[in-house]
Amino acid sequence: MLQKMKNVLRIRNRTIREMLAEALGTFILMVFGLSSVAQVILGKGNSGQYLSINLAFGIGATLGIYAAGGVSGGHLNAAITITQCILGNISGTALVAYIAGQFLGSFVAAATVFAVYYDAIYHYTNGSLTVSGPTATAMIFSTYPAPNISLQGAFFTEFMATIMLVLGVLVIHDEKNNAAIKGAQPMLTGMLVLGIGLGMGLNTGYAINPSRDLPPRIFTAIAGWGMDVFTSDHSWWWVPVTAPVLGCLAGVLIYKLCIDFHNLPGNETEHEKEQASMETSKL
Amino acid sequence: MLQKMKNVLRIRNRTIREMLAEALGTFILMVFGLSSVAQVILGKGNSGQYLSINLAFGIGATLGIYAAGGVSGGHLNAAITITQCILGNISGTALVAYIAGQFLGSFVAAATVFAVYYDAIYHYTNGSLTVSGPTATAMIFSTYPAPNISLQGAFFTEFMATIMLVLGVLVIHDEKNNAAIKGAQPMLTGMLVLGIGLGMGLNTGYAINPSRDLPPRIFTAIAGWGMDVFTSDHSWWWVPVTAPVLGCLAGVLIYKLCIDFHNLPGNETEHEKEQASMETSKL
Amino acid sequence: MLQKMKNVLRIRNRTIREMLAEALGTFILMVFGLSSVAQVILGKGNSGQYLSINLAFGIGATLGIYAAGGVSGGHLNAAITITQCILGNISGTALVAYIAGQFLGSFVAAATVFAVYYDAIYHYTNGSLTVSGPTATAMIFSTYPAPNISLQGAFFTEFMATIMLVLGVLVIHDEKNNAAIKGAQPMLTGMLVLGIGLGMGLNTGYAINPSRDLPPRIFTAIAGWGMDVFTSDHSWWWVPVTAPVLGCLAGVLIYKLCIDFHNLPGNETEHEKEQASMETSKL
Amino acid sequence: MLQKMKNVLRIRNRTIREMLAEALGTFILMVFGLSSVAQVILGKGNSGQYLSINLAFGIGATLGIYAAGGVSGGHLNAAITITQCILGNISGTALVAYIAGQFLGSFVAAATVFAVYYDAIYHYTNGSLTVSGPTATAMIFSTYPAPNISLQGAFFTEFMATIMLVLGVLVIHDEKNNAAIKGAQPMLTGMLVLGIGLGMGLNTGYAINPSRDLPPRIFTAIAGWGMDVFTSDHSWWWVPVTAPVLGCLAGVLIYKLCIDFHNLPGNETEHEKEQASMETSKL
Repeated sequence: MLQKMKNVLRIRNRTIREMLAEALGTFILMVFGLSSVAQVILGKGNSGQYLSINLAFGIGATLGIYAAGGVSGGHLNAAITITQCILGNISGTALVAYIAGQFLGSFVAAATVFAVYYDAIYHYTNGSLTVSGPTATAMIFSTYPAPNISLQGAFFTEFMATIMLVLGVLVIHDEKNNAAIKGAQPMLTGMLVLGIGLGMGLNTGYAINPSRDLPPRIFTAIAGWGMDVFTSDHSWWWVPVTAPVLGCLAGVLIYKLCIDFHNLPGNETEHEKEQASMETSKL
Repeated sequence: MLQKMKNVLRIRNRTIREMLAEALGTFILMVFGLSSVAQVILGKGNSGQYLSINLAFGIGATLGIYAAGGVSGGHLNAAITITQCILGNISGTALVAYIAGQFLGSFVAAATVFAVYYDAIYHYTNGSLTVSGPTATAMIFSTYPAPNISLQGAFFTEFMATIMLVLGVLVIHDEKNNAAIKGAQPMLTGMLVLGIGLGMGLNTGYAINPSRDLPPRIFTAIAGWGMDVFTSDHSWWWVPVTAPVLGCLAGVLIYKLCIDFHNLPGNETEHEKEQASMETSKL
Repeated sequence: MLQKMKNVLRIRNRTIREMLAEALGTFILMVFGLSSVAQVILGKGNSGQYLSINLAFGIGATLGIYAAGGVSGGHLNAAITITQCILGNISGTALVAYIAGQFLGSFVAAATVFAVYYDAIYHYTNGSLTVSGPTATAMIFSTYPAPNISLQGAFFTEFMATIMLVLGVLVIHDEKNNAAIKGAQPMLTGMLVLGIGLGMGLNTGYAINPSRDLPPRIFTAIAGWGMDVFTSDHSWWWVPVTAPVLGCLAGVLIYKLCIDFHNLPGNETEHEKEQASMETSKL
Repeated sequence: MLQKMKNVLRIRNRTIREMLAEALGTFILMVFGLSSVAQVILGKGNSGQYLSINLAFGIGATLGIYAAGGVSGGHLNAAITITQCILGNISGTALVAYIAGQFLGSFVAAATVFAVYYDAIYHYTNGSLTVSGPTATAMIFSTYPAPNISLQGAFFTEFMATIMLVLGVLVIHDEKNNAAIKGAQPMLTGMLVLGIGLGMGLNTGYAINPSRDLPPRIFTAIAGWGMDVFTSDHSWWWVPVTAPVLGCLAGVLIYKLCIDFHNLPGNETEHEKEQASMETSKL
């Protein structure tokens, strides 16, 4: 039966396949991430804590990259996709397909988590879906800045946290440098996301990814939280859409300037690497 | 001595060996998992927290798969076994053997945890083994839904959480896509189980596995909690037995439609994978 | 300079080298483990929690095995060493050397942690080193049973927890079955120890190892806590010395009966393993 | 564009490249570490706990080593660099370059975390940047000893914790012994740092690294906390600068005496390793 389905439904077009892969990967990332926020808030701290959210986004990133990695490279983040396009690594068509896939997966994930926690949200809020106040629930889906943070501070936080994300992604994958074992790279990327949440989540909730933040925000606007999700906190919504893109570009530049421009591919570097590693083991 | 025992006791029948492997693997999974629930509840939060339970089920899954993986593939979950049988990957005989092994291991694990915590349970409950109330202990062994969740919501949660389980298992193991390193796959499956607990445990306690839920429930019915374990919460018991099977089938279908149908085995895919991975490293 | 020292101090005798390796490995395990208990108790919960202790013993086990693994195999546990001797895998001389090394390392680790936390212990206790009471500190070093547990219950817990330890060690390392990647086996053994702490620590503090429990107890008897460390809790001290040995033997037997007796080395098993693994990937 | 930049900006001088690599690696380590302290303190425990800090320094170490490992070996710690120089493994020029890079990276990281949490620090402190008192914030950046610890006790703690660090680094990397898989060594080093924080952080905040402690202290002196950061706690600042160097040397010596002097490179050891490992698997 599956064989027949396969013959009928098989897609050979690479762009569509990449879109599907990005959609599934982002869906996985977001279901793990958003559901953990829901569990912590709706469980009133008895079923998890801030650390649970950090862990869940990390695990979601890991599994999402395992899902999409073989087909699309597993961006799962519009900031990374845009950067790749600016650097000339993917075409404009791919850019559109990747982001469409990411947004689709993220939106469906938000709807899925809403469906899973529909009863609990209604019980927690008495049916009043709000962005602020003691039973606010919009932050289950999208990020909102902390009360006492300025817009510049929030923008800089998202910018900086994305720089750390990109630096981490690059060092884990750079074969010319000290890359992690291939089959474990997605796990380390998950640890990286965990690390960002442990230290750079207080101000803005570490969106660091337009595809993580915007589609669930649109979902909440439709699903009953209203346009407050866009207008609240001085129309904060555009910050996690733009700051990560700039952070991504800056992160690439920093890595190139500090490490990559000066590394040669092939033998010479290999030789130096060995020397560098021997120094450690000679300790 | 062991050599003599080996000659006498050695079993060559593959079905029996698979049953034993599933029994041992599920036993390991369940002893780690159930004992952590016991420790958190009976220790009144001084010896662990919700996160401990999430971690312990993850570690139990990892070790259980290392135990059974070389013989039976390490299903440890009747939903996965049934799905494999429907897909034509294992025979009807194997289906019975696998599930029998899983149920046996799970039942013995429940009895083991009961024996380990016999004193503590009696001290905590003053000898009154109940399914609900302030000193309820039945949830050490089986899952029960949260108070304010509807039956549909609970069913959908188990269905959805099992979809995430299956998606995770498939992406970790799919050699045609972006599989994890072979010897580390059970560890990643453990991380996956941890992730499900971090975000999808609030409503139903994430059974996501009939073999995890039903045999300990039968044990509690026998061991002193009585038939309440089946009748309570509107006879909830059948949900974690059926929803995971449907979720498992749905998860396989989603993965096939998004990724697997469109991936070719062998060179071509290999080539594309390289390209996809190069894109990331070119960042 | 180091080269000269090397020529003078180099030991070629394998037994002494194994003793040294076990000493260093057990020292590492115990410094990480005991210091975390000290930090949680003396920090009054502000510098860690029960989970920190579970993590620290796991990390200590991982690093201790990396330290000793290449020379002695990294037992770090007298129960494992005794079992190996009973099974005929190590000689009587080795048995003595291994246990002497383990006890030495464990004793020095207890002294080290005492020295590190000398000020904090004296401030916490006002100089009164006691086994029980509100400022008891003996449990920083050795295990003591929970107040309401019977001796049989405590014995059975240590017996059972050691069975789980041994099952875990065997499944992680069994090359004929589904072993973990070689260089990651110590990490998985650490996860195993973490898992035991998450679920089987409430009754007895999961000694599961005479070398973890007895030498620090002797240290506390000498260092100021007095003979109470042996007489308290109905002379509990002998339980974590004997129960783990029985548990270790039982664990080996269970694994042999369920898996190992029926596995063939070499091709045939390899073939079946492939089939088993294919079944999973075919899902 | 990047290609042109590369041609212009490419540095072939190895010493400068090593300095840049150490700078970037230490920057990554410190941004993850310091930001997590900030998040825990400024979030008043709602956005993390002591364990978060332990995890973040571990993850920072992992990623920092991935960043610098391929170029400089990834010391990220002046104590390790000084030890390497004393052992004759790196030249005096390299010593200066490494430490300059580490200090630069650490200083910039402190400034970055200050910028990210500028608003939150001002809101938390009402603009008064102090080293002690209820709204003290200097310990976000550098370590300070616990109130009731003596200077000797604090010195010994830093000395001992660095011994554990070095022992861990050596056992993870020793190819003649039982090294971890190459691509996962930075991850295990991160676990090691986590373990030290779980057990040896209470007295002194586990600096174990002059490059982690001194540059952020200089930064706070400049940025508004004043010279109190050097004079407070009986001029504590020099302890985390000197004790780790001694600890590092002691750790190397202990490892050499217990393991390394007696291990031969090549076949013989390989053979013994196999025997040692067989003993475990024969269990």
